[in-house]
Amino acid sequence: MNSKKINIQEKFQKFSEHWSPKVIAEMNDYQFKLAKVKGEFIWHEHKETDEVFIVIDGRMQIEFREEIIELETGDMYVVPKGVEHKPYAEEECSIMLVEPRGVVNTGDKTNDMTIENDVWI
Amino acid sequence: MNSKKINIQEKFQKFSEHWSPKVIAEMNDYQFKLAKVKGEFIWHEHKETDEVFIVIDGRMQIEFREEIIELETGDMYVVPKGVEHKPYAEEECSIMLVEPRGVVNTGDKTNDMTIENDVWI
Repeated sequence: MNSKKINIQEKFQKFSEHWSPKVIAEMNDYQFKLAKVKGEFIWHEHKETDEVFIVIDGRMQIEFREEIIELETGDMYVVPKGVEHKPYAEEECSIMLVEPRGVVNTGDKTNDMTIENDVWI
Repeated sequence: MNSKKINIQEKFQKFSEHWSPKVIAEMNDYQFKLAKVKGEFIWHEHKETDEVFIVIDGRMQIEFREEIIELETGDMYVVPKGVEHKPYAEEECSIMLVEPRGVVNTGDKTNDMTIENDVWI
């Protein structure tokens, strides 16, 4: 499954829902996921791992308890493990996430934004 | 060091040498590195880890013993651990690499293309 060439833009064309990361590749026990985000996500944290955000197309922000980080195309941010954060995008934004296999999108919370994990496209 | 916003294009402007990956971010014990590649690299393998290539701008190929994979902007490839490969780019190509901290660029070989590891920009 991880031995083929992957085109990031083609993968983005395969889904439209927001806040629902899809796995496109695995490296060791880490996964590369694509997501389209729009509107507000929830406050959450990942107690066991850092989480990488890379903005592929658009603008988004990550709110922390003490600051708001604005990100746009080509920006990358590492959310340290155990740090509460709330992603937000005014307009639809396409992002790549990198994190260990098994990370739940809503972290320490489970609610109606919690998606099925490990869905590949 | 990993708690700040990182702009990938700005980082590429900070170096010009070929085949010399620079670290721009760490997530847990993994590193994100940028490299400019042109010409031939050497045959090598990483016995302990997969290695991710993401083409940020340009074209390159990864030669394997049984096939040659052509990659261009927006393409991604996971080289499985223990698989011999030889990167090549006819024109300069900008790439991102993702791999565990401590991976040597020439893998199981050491020669004049082996660079100092863990250099941040």
